[in-house]
Amino acid sequence: MSKNLTKRSEDYSKWYNELVVKADLGENSGVRGCMVIKPYGFAIWEKMQAALDKMFKETGHQNAYFPLFIPKSYFSKEASHVDGFAKECAIVTHYRLKNDENGKGLVVDEDAKLEEELIVRPTSETIIWDTYRKWVQSYRDLPLLINQWANVVRWEMRTRLFLRTAEFLWQEGHTAHATKKEAIAEAEQMQEVYADFAENFMAMPVIKGIKTESERFAGALETYTIEALMQDGKALQSGTSHFLGQNFAKAFDVKFTSKEGKQEYVWATSWGVSTRLMGALIMTHSDDKGLVLPPKLAPIQVVIVPIYKNEDQLEAISEKVNLMVKDLRKKNITVKYDDRDTFKPGWKFAEYELKGVPLRIAIGPRDLENGTAELARRDTLTKEIVNQADIVTRIEGLLVEMQQSLFDKARIYREKHITEVNTFDEFKDVIENKGGFVSAHWDGTNETEDKIKEITKATIRCIPNDAINEAGSCVYTGNPSTKRVLFAKAY
Amino acid sequence: MSKNLTKRSEDYSKWYNELVVKADLGENSGVRGCMVIKPYGFAIWEKMQAALDKMFKETGHQNAYFPLFIPKSYFSKEASHVDGFAKECAIVTHYRLKNDENGKGLVVDEDAKLEEELIVRPTSETIIWDTYRKWVQSYRDLPLLINQWANVVRWEMRTRLFLRTAEFLWQEGHTAHATKKEAIAEAEQMQEVYADFAENFMAMPVIKGIKTESERFAGALETYTIEALMQDGKALQSGTSHFLGQNFAKAFDVKFTSKEGKQEYVWATSWGVSTRLMGALIMTHSDDKGLVLPPKLAPIQVVIVPIYKNEDQLEAISEKVNLMVKDLRKKNITVKYDDRDTFKPGWKFAEYELKGVPLRIAIGPRDLENGTAELARRDTLTKEIVNQADIVTRIEGLLVEMQQSLFDKARIYREKHITEVNTFDEFKDVIENKGGFVSAHWDGTNETEDKIKEITKATIRCIPNDAINEAGSCVYTGNPSTKRVLFAKAY
Repeated sequence: MSKNLTKRSEDYSKWYNELVVKADLGENSGVRGCMVIKPYGFAIWEKMQAALDKMFKETGHQNAYFPLFIPKSYFSKEASHVDGFAKECAIVTHYRLKNDENGKGLVVDEDAKLEEELIVRPTSETIIWDTYRKWVQSYRDLPLLINQWANVVRWEMRTRLFLRTAEFLWQEGHTAHATKKEAIAEAEQMQEVYADFAENFMAMPVIKGIKTESERFAGALETYTIEALMQDGKALQSGTSHFLGQNFAKAFDVKFTSKEGKQEYVWATSWGVSTRLMGALIMTHSDDKGLVLPPKLAPIQVVIVPIYKNEDQLEAISEKVNLMVKDLRKKNITVKYDDRDTFKPGWKFAEYELKGVPLRIAIGPRDLENGTAELARRDTLTKEIVNQADIVTRIEGLLVEMQQSLFDKARIYREKHITEVNTFDEFKDVIENKGGFVSAHWDGTNETEDKIKEITKATIRCIPNDAINEAGSCVYTGNPSTKRVLFAKAY
Repeated sequence: MSKNLTKRSEDYSKWYNELVVKADLGENSGVRGCMVIKPYGFAIWEKMQAALDKMFKETGHQNAYFPLFIPKSYFSKEASHVDGFAKECAIVTHYRLKNDENGKGLVVDEDAKLEEELIVRPTSETIIWDTYRKWVQSYRDLPLLINQWANVVRWEMRTRLFLRTAEFLWQEGHTAHATKKEAIAEAEQMQEVYADFAENFMAMPVIKGIKTESERFAGALETYTIEALMQDGKALQSGTSHFLGQNFAKAFDVKFTSKEGKQEYVWATSWGVSTRLMGALIMTHSDDKGLVLPPKLAPIQVVIVPIYKNEDQLEAISEKVNLMVKDLRKKNITVKYDDRDTFKPGWKFAEYELKGVPLRIAIGPRDLENGTAELARRDTLTKEIVNQADIVTRIEGLLVEMQQSLFDKARIYREKHITEVNTFDEFKDVIENKGGFVSAHWDGTNETEDKIKEITKATIRCIPNDAINEAGSCVYTGNPSTKRVLFAKAY
């Protein structure tokens, strides 16, 4: 296993691209902009899915499935939505191929043209609200708390594995409520769920806030976001939850009879996270030797590598290891014993370092004599000799410690990279040279936001939920402002 | 809740269509041929997925994800495959919509035409084998044991909810092996896994066999199938596993260096089951009152309905029920306490009968006095009075008993509907009047198979794995035959 991974300090972007491929997470396919998620990468995504799905169900949501295709006319019904999504999309126009009469091979059969084009869903608000019309008559049918795990397609021109691909996997929650208050509470709740998942499973600290008008989801009245900071000082929007008001209910005529017998439009939310979280996870913790994974999301938590010179030694080692494996599995620890004879221990060490397996046990003949094993920790790259009798307890403790320690490290980095500035010169200097979030006063107008973006490439990531009310003046115009917002360059 | 379900004896097909909708399993969407899987239906599918996914992983498979789109040219590479799949399909030709200059609204932007059309995957052999070429160099890279959970699209002209829809959900396994023997063993193993799942989770007996040449998967050398029998005497192909030989390896140039240093083509299998299994499950067990579900796949295994006249009674009942719920959950039994005051007990009884909840507990003031509850069983529609102290144990036992009893009932029905015939008159009579499988000698030719299909609409469902070698003569031509095969009309 030759790693040859570019260093982060040399070229962060190249480091990321190489790491995704070399750690067997994903790769580009023969289809422009569409990725293949390889088994090791998919195993991480499955762990994310399982944790999120459990959290969704615990908050009362159910899964369902809606069509991949959306008739073109559905998009026209919600004006801002069509501008945001319907334009760069995959369009199905025909339903049959035929063998060309002039021997040109397989061609589109022009006789099989659809009357109305179908759009491959970029997001499912329109098809879902067209369905909800049939499901909602009375207040007794509300709330609808539904989630869908699905693939979606957005015709992105510049793609990067996991971070921005034409097809990606995600979940999209779509809820319907009798009151505005309830819908807002739902949107806020899902922001909390996402933040909880990001921090407690991904070990990735996030800032909770709301988006400015220009950064809102197309069709939303309010967009709640969680924003993370990558090691190159750029922010990554990691999950959003939208309060959609009655926009989709009005567009698709979804009304209900209230307890008082009145006909009212339904209130809506939608919320989603995607395989983009894989990119966030990779960039938050990994280093120049490869992937670093928080134990809760690692497909393999512990790998055991035998060190041996002959079959007899291997057999003696395997006997001990098999007992160890059994004990670890009893504690719900995922463990792999790599006794392949086709690869050398050194190769295996490098391989599992690259793949971010949190703990590695090496065990050889001398360890057998001494009743010990060597335990190596991926995040700190430290090693220790442990008594075999203590190893399960030690591993249990280390996995918990590593989960916390990765979070703390990322949080400290993040704290160091939130810089308060009060002049536009400072602003430009921090964005240009230090990176991270800039906390600054803003006059609340789109014009200023656009102008700052044009000059610095930094955007307002969010108005933090915990922003303090303080009188100040806009860092760009000097106009009055009541609170600081967070700017950053972003993925 | 007005049920008004058509009786099976009146119109089996109508009964099915109504049941799917009324039991909240699924419904047609605004997109031709595409269904919406409603939360209750999706919860059953999730249980199926979880059980199958576990079985796949226990047999060494890993999940991955491949692109939704397949370039048109990929299909041309495997000749029989293109005939089988590429023709009736959804074709993406453009990637942008625009606002029409003449005010006709949203139209396809002709400037955004794809150079090569993309087909929405009807199955993924081509895109996956195009990828495997990059993954396989040496025998050390084999076997690849990969599965994908995905949506696929086949442009079916006549669709029915779950049984045949344009878009459906499925899993597709795609494995690559160094030897023919290993690939065949894999295809056979997956047939066993499917049969195990059908019988032990769906409580649906199946016949294992191989397909005749004309019924084989497009591109396969052998197709292994499991065939079930529905209550109307029609067979339903419930899962297939294919030995693909080296067809796809040759089409996509996937070679490996063997241990002996030779360049060889890789051997392949693929195997899949889909949301069609939902149709099979519904039709195998349900009755004129609604859905009947095997306990292992029921989203709710036990529902508890309180019978009360006032708030005090409800409170006293709820106190008891909450303890019961706790005890049941400790045993991993899924239980719902339906204390909604917006519906009457009678309505609730009908609702849960329609939805096939295996066990229903009703508990009223008199039960509180006597320390009892009424326990009703969905499959047999029998009721019994049980002491509250014994109820958890009784329910545990009943769930196991019901699972077995549903299987036995379906097996007995199936056994009664396998009819050996020796003349073509008998053949026609059984197919026409009794239904089910007909076990008959066949001369092994496509011509005879086609002719019989033309006359009777019955097809060869499979050559059973356990068919006995016996000399006979073909039921249609009189030509010699060495074993009986199973014919039936099929979904």
